[in-house]
This record gives sequence, structure tokens and C-alpha cells, in this order.
Amino acid sequence: MAPRADLARRAVAEALGTALLLAAVVGSGIMAERLAGGNVALALLANTVATGAALVALILTFGAISGAHFNPAVTLADASQGGLSWREVPAYILAQIAGAFAGVAVAHVMFGEALFSASRHERSGLAQMASEFVATFGLLAVIWGSARRRVEAVPFAVGAYITAAYWFTSSTSFANPAVTLARAASDTFAGIRPADAPGFVVAQLAGAAVATLAFRWLVPALPKVADRVVDRILPEDMS
Amino acid sequence: MAPRADLARRAVAEALGTALLLAAVVGSGIMAERLAGGNVALALLANTVATGAALVALILTFGAISGAHFNPAVTLADASQGGLSWREVPAYILAQIAGAFAGVAVAHVMFGEALFSASRHERSGLAQMASEFVATFGLLAVIWGSARRRVEAVPFAVGAYITAAYWFTSSTSFANPAVTLARAASDTFAGIRPADAPGFVVAQLAGAAVATLAFRWLVPALPKVADRVVDRILPEDMS
Amino acid sequence: MAPRADLARRAVAEALGTALLLAAVVGSGIMAERLAGGNVALALLANTVATGAALVALILTFGAISGAHFNPAVTLADASQGGLSWREVPAYILAQIAGAFAGVAVAHVMFGEALFSASRHERSGLAQMASEFVATFGLLAVIWGSARRRVEAVPFAVGAYITAAYWFTSSTSFANPAVTLARAASDTFAGIRPADAPGFVVAQLAGAAVATLAFRWLVPALPKVADRVVDRILPEDMS
Amino acid sequence: MAPRADLARRAVAEALGTALLLAAVVGSGIMAERLAGGNVALALLANTVATGAALVALILTFGAISGAHFNPAVTLADASQGGLSWREVPAYILAQIAGAFAGVAVAHVMFGEALFSASRHERSGLAQMASEFVATFGLLAVIWGSARRRVEAVPFAVGAYITAAYWFTSSTSFANPAVTLARAASDTFAGIRPADAPGFVVAQLAGAAVATLAFRWLVPALPKVADRVVDRILPEDMS
Repeated sequence: MAPRADLARRAVAEALGTALLLAAVVGSGIMAERLAGGNVALALLANTVATGAALVALILTFGAISGAHFNPAVTLADASQGGLSWREVPAYILAQIAGAFAGVAVAHVMFGEALFSASRHERSGLAQMASEFVATFGLLAVIWGSARRRVEAVPFAVGAYITAAYWFTSSTSFANPAVTLARAASDTFAGIRPADAPGFVVAQLAGAAVATLAFRWLVPALPKVADRVVDRILPEDMS
Repeated sequence: MAPRADLARRAVAEALGTALLLAAVVGSGIMAERLAGGNVALALLANTVATGAALVALILTFGAISGAHFNPAVTLADASQGGLSWREVPAYILAQIAGAFAGVAVAHVMFGEALFSASRHERSGLAQMASEFVATFGLLAVIWGSARRRVEAVPFAVGAYITAAYWFTSSTSFANPAVTLARAASDTFAGIRPADAPGFVVAQLAGAAVATLAFRWLVPALPKVADRVVDRILPEDMS
Repeated sequence: MAPRADLARRAVAEALGTALLLAAVVGSGIMAERLAGGNVALALLANTVATGAALVALILTFGAISGAHFNPAVTLADASQGGLSWREVPAYILAQIAGAFAGVAVAHVMFGEALFSASRHERSGLAQMASEFVATFGLLAVIWGSARRRVEAVPFAVGAYITAAYWFTSSTSFANPAVTLARAASDTFAGIRPADAPGFVVAQLAGAAVATLAFRWLVPALPKVADRVVDRILPEDMS
Repeated sequence: MAPRADLARRAVAEALGTALLLAAVVGSGIMAERLAGGNVALALLANTVATGAALVALILTFGAISGAHFNPAVTLADASQGGLSWREVPAYILAQIAGAFAGVAVAHVMFGEALFSASRHERSGLAQMASEFVATFGLLAVIWGSARRRVEAVPFAVGAYITAAYWFTSSTSFANPAVTLARAASDTFAGIRPADAPGFVVAQLAGAAVATLAFRWLVPALPKVADRVVDRILPEDMS
């Protein structure tokens, strides 16, 4: 493995990045719904553009510190291939979940809403479960495939993928267990009923696992790719 | 030729990538039509953004395995310049067609529709034939030209091109025989009547052939470019 | 100067690229107006996305052959700094104008319109003249500045710039004399009255000249940059 | 420090770039509001696309001359880490403010408005203050993080970030004191009441300071990054 930032810095980077991601997802959803005058396609288009762009910016920002996972499914998949050691996983996942909830609160403050509010947005049924499976399968496929080619492409690949996936899945592609839990605490455009969250998480983890198995076969060198999913730190940066 | 993944892995990559592409095209069409409240421009804009972004992500993902053709017209053109051997062509094309139909089925499941349904969307006439000829001519021009410059640019060039072509052709630029056949099996926003599909395929193959002839003259070194249209595998990846 | 394709190939590349650019500008304008149900903002947004994306794709495609000027103002500015020899300029400009008109005709065929039709779209007055001056000043600034940094950035810089300029100028930023002449032959969304075209061309050439003078001072090494505005051909491509 | 253009050239580049940025922000706001028929979401979407794209183009254009700060908060943060000497700071900030006002005037001329007009657009309250703090915190985080990875990514990271931030903050993310002052002189879509500007500036500077402190800890090598926030000039450019 290449030299890396210590775990405390990486965990803070994961928390900060996931917080900004959730602020972007939830905040742009509130803004879009307020301005769109009832046209849901227009609201979702604005929400999509904001989310895809935020992902590009945030992965470029935090990738060189923590790998910019922002997502327990990515962390678990990366650990399964040796890209991250298992003992680092809890710090990553806790930071992601804490950051996600903080990001929701920040979005709510920026729009004058209560810090948290249980969502009443129903998202259930087979079509939505299938959507989250496909969405997370695709996300992991994109990460494994594009990280293999060259790590510089990952921010653009992931941002583009989620931009598309907001529209091609009936669930609008949460594809991220930490995001799912935190969006349950937002009774706004981007929310999900707490009761619907566990099903989403199960479908997401299944999609991530199947994509990782598929790429394990497609790309025999996958563990080398996994190492790249947490960015190297350049030696000259270690002052 | 540079070392490559074996044909089985490449065929699976073509099938998987084409399936995700069709899921994106058809799925986002369904979502967009459902939400747009009858405004076709808004629906097509969402469909466009999703398709262009999906292409960027999927070519970055599968390019380093199979070349990310996802398109029999591209595979045939590449083989004509020696980038792919003719005996590999049937596996590529079968994988693309099978993947395309699977992707349509996946989209339908994600939106609670029947697995397949014959489209009733009429797309015929000289203007649409001319559109498919121009669309596929342009697509092959973009691939030949941008692959020549540097293979890293191809995903962005193709994604940007199709984003534009959705709007500047009256057919919305299918530009892909496998995509055309599979979209005939979707009675949704992105569909095409089965009876109209053969005309589209003929116009697409003609456009691809003319573009390849034109670039054969414009770029004397085209066979070297063709080799790049199936990505090299880095030696360190061959563990 | 680095080795280059011969002038015939470069002129054909300029013609082909400019034709596809005009097909994109005019075609997407027709499609957008037909679908937008009278909402001009939505129509212009689709027209913008298509034009910006087309520029990215086409500059990536033809940049390595002819430099992908597609624009007499760019060719003249580049020649003024020695990037192109003056005896090559007429072939470039004629190819651009011929290609532009061909592209308009292709767009009209794809949408079932007459090959050419004189536009009745009035675009005149001081605000529009100022707009074309600013638009072309900005375009040349972007080309000089981004080509200096690294030539790989130019397609994205130009595509992004025109995407913005469609909206921040009251003329929607033609910024190109060949494009202006050809759009006078299209009585559609993207058209301009023939009587208004000469004023646009004068403002465009003035903007290009002032930007080039400004960057001549800002960047003392400008002639070295000019050489890069027609891409190098890699020696291994000269089979 | 790497060799750089002299301060006069860099100050002119900052003024020119900031002027074009303001022309884009204010001009596209006017155009969008005029065309959108009262739909604020559509107007803001067009304004967003234009602003994000303009940032990409302008940072690619002026980055290699002055670093393309266009923003006193960025200049101050960069100077605090030694990327710029404190004696250069006044020239940068004066150029940015002068350029910003010039850009507003240019936008107004292009749309037939008076050169300047005091805005009546109220933007006040805790939610908007919090928004500007978060917006500028995020902007500096993106700059510090993405410049560390590789300076070529900064234009895309910043453009993507602002695209998102227009939507995920209730203030639409001014995130720039020079921009804030100049937009107070535009009674159009993008304006802000002069009385509300000071609060915005305070929140912006606080956000920039906190982000810089956070990244000082996250990235021990931050001063080396700071040096990159003003681009190196390649020796071969110093003719």
C-alpha cells in the first residue's frame, strides 16, 4: 500500500465530505421543490444537476485524503478486496453516518427548517427494491471499472453515474446506506420514511456485493484496484 | 496489439455495459415522461442528461476491459480497420444484443412494467432515416477522431456527442443497431415500432461505413487508432 | 512548427467539423422549439446543452487534424500570431463557410424543412452588437488562455464558454462569422436576418482582435501558444 | 515558488477574469428571467448552468496567469498559507473588485440596462447567513483539496461546486466578497440589496477562514498546495 494520511484525518475527511454531500442532496431538493411550482420533473432535474456536480467536486476534494468513499457500501466492498483494512472500517462507517446526519441538519438550517424531521415520503415495493439493487450494483461497477483505468477518472465517472441513476431508477438511486439513514430524518423532497430505510439498505448491500463478485471475475487484478480506491498520498505531501 | 482480457471476459463486459446503457436510456425515459406533466421538451432534456452521463460513466467503467463498444456498428467499423479480429466480432455483437434486451427488461422491472412490450412509437420517413445516417456518421467520426488524439478523451467525447445528437436529429439519435432492436421491445418514451427498426439499422450501418471511409482518408494511421478503440490492458493488471 | 496533416486534409476536417457544428446548432434549435410548447427558456436551455456538448465532441474529434477552428475569427487570430501561415488562411475560411452552409442544409433535411430559407429573426441594435463583441472577445481569450495551459483543456474550455455565453449575451453568442452567415439561411429558432449578419461579423472580428492584442501583452509567449492552436500530429501517427 | 508573471499582468488577468465572471452571472440572470415566463426554477437552472460553465472556462483561461482567484476570500486564504505574498494581496483584491463592477456594467450594456442600479433584492436572515458561511467554507475546501490532488482538476472542481451550491444554499451561494459588492449594483435577477451585502461578506470571510484552518490540520503540507493555487508558469513560456 502507498503511504496514507492517518486514520483520524481520513475519518474526519469522510465525515466532512459526507456532510457536504448530504447538504447538497437535501438542500437542493428543498430549493428545487420550493421554486419548481409543482413541476416534479423540473425539481428533480435541478436536484440531479446539483447532486452530480457536488459529487464531482467532493470526490476531487477529499479523494486524496480518505478516498472519498462517503458510503458504507463502498467502504465494505473496498475492504473485501483488501483496499482498506477491516480494522479501519468502523471508523469510516461511523464517520460517514455521523457526517450524513450533520449534513441534513446543515441543509435544514440553511433553509430555515427544524434540525431533523421524520420523513413521510413513502418509497417501498419491489420496483424500488430492484432499483436500489441495480443502482448500487452500477455504482460499484463504475468505481471498480474506472478506478482500474485511472484514479483521476473516478470523480467524473461517479458524478456522471449518479446523475444518470437519479433518472433511470424509480427510487432515484440512494445507493448509499449512510445517505439512506440520514434522508429518513428529512421530511423534504429528498426524504424517505424511516420504515422504508432498512429495505433500501439491504438492497444496496446486495447490489454492492454482487458487483464486487462480478468485477472480481472480470478483472483478476481487482485487489490492486482496491488499493487505489483510497488515494495514494504523494511523498512530497508528507511534510 | 497490446495484451487484452480474454474474449469471454470482454463479451461479458460488453453485455453488462450495454445492459446498463439500455436500463439508463429506457428507465430515464419512463421516469421523465411520468414526471414531466406532458412537456416533451422537459422529458427529453432529462432523458438526454441521463443518457449522456450514463455513457461517460459506462465507457470509463468498461473501456479498459472490452473497449466499451456497446454497439455493433462500432464493433464492425473497428474490425474493418483491424482493431478487433473478425472472429471476435460475433461474440461482441451477440453480447451487445443480449445485453440490450436484458437492460430493457431491467428498466421495466425497476418501473413496475411488463418485462417486454412491443413499442407503438412510430419513427419513420426520410427525415428520420437521414437523421440516423448523420447520427451514426457523427458517432463514428467522434470515436475515430478522439481515440486518435488520446483514448482518455473518448468517454467524454462520446457522452457529449450523444447529448447533442439527441437534440439535433429528428430521430433522437439511436445510432446503434443493438439499442434499436431492444428499444423496439419497450412501449415507453424511448421505444420504436418493430416495423421501423430495420430502416434505422440500415441507415446506421451506412453512416458508420461512410464515416470510417472518410476517416481512413483523413487519418492515414487509422488502423493504429483502431487498435486503441479496444483499450490496452496495463501489464501490471495481469496478475 | 510540429508536423501537420497536409492542407487538403485539414480543410476537409474544417468543413466536416463546421458542418456538424451547424447541424447541431440549427437542428437542436428546431427540435427544441418544436417540443418546448412556447417556453423560450426551456428551448434555449436544450439548444445550449446541445451546442456546448457538440463543441466538446467536435473539438476532441477534429482538433488533432486541423486544430478544430470552425471559425474564421479564430483562424485569422491564429494566423496573426504565426500559428497558421497566411497562405493557409483562405482554404480554412472557405472550408468553414462551405461547411457551415452544408450543415444548415443537413439540419433542414433531418427535420423535413427546405434546404435553405432566409431567416426573419431580427437581431440588431447596440446591445446585440456589444454582445457579439464581448462574446468573441471572451471566446478568443478562452482559446489563448486555455491553449497556453495545456491543449487537452481547450475542447472543454470552449464548450463550457459557449454554454455560458448563450445565456449571458443578448445575442446568444454567435461569436463566429461562418456560423453567422449560415444561420442567416435558416428561418428557424437559431436564425438571423441576412440584413443583421454584417453587423454581427464586424463586432465579432473586433472582439477577436482586441482579445488577441490583450493576450499578446498578458502572455509574452503567445506565438508559441498559437502554434498549439493547430494540434501537433504525433510522429507515430504519420504512417 | 515557481516563476510567475509579473504582478501587473496578474492583476489585469484577475480584473479581466472577474469582469467576465460577473458578466456571466448577471447577464445570464437577466436573460433567464426574461425568457422563463415566471418559472423561477427554470430561470435559476439556466443561471446555474451558465455560471458553472463560465467558471470552468475562465479558470482554465486565467489560471496559468494569475491563479484565477477572482475572489478576495480565496486570495486572503492563499496568502495566509504563503501561496501569495501579503504585499501582492491589495493589487489582487482591488483588481477583483474593479473587474466585478466592470463586469456588471458590461452585462447591463449587453441587455440594454443602465450601467448600474441599486438592487432591491432582499437577502437577509440567519438562514442566508448560514448559507454564505457554508458556501464559502465549501468553496475553500474544494480549492484546497482539489489543488492538492492536481492543479488541472481545480477548474472542474470549482465549476461543479458552484453549480451545486447555487441550489443547496438558500442564498444561491455568492461565496465571494467582490461578487457580492458588484451584484449590489444590479437591480436584476442576480442582485442583492446593498444593505444586505456586509453581512454576506462577513459570513463569507468566516467560512473561508474556518475551511482553511480545517485543511491546515487535514493536510499538513497545505503551504505547498497554496503555492499551486497560483499556477506555475512553464519556463518555456518566459520568452
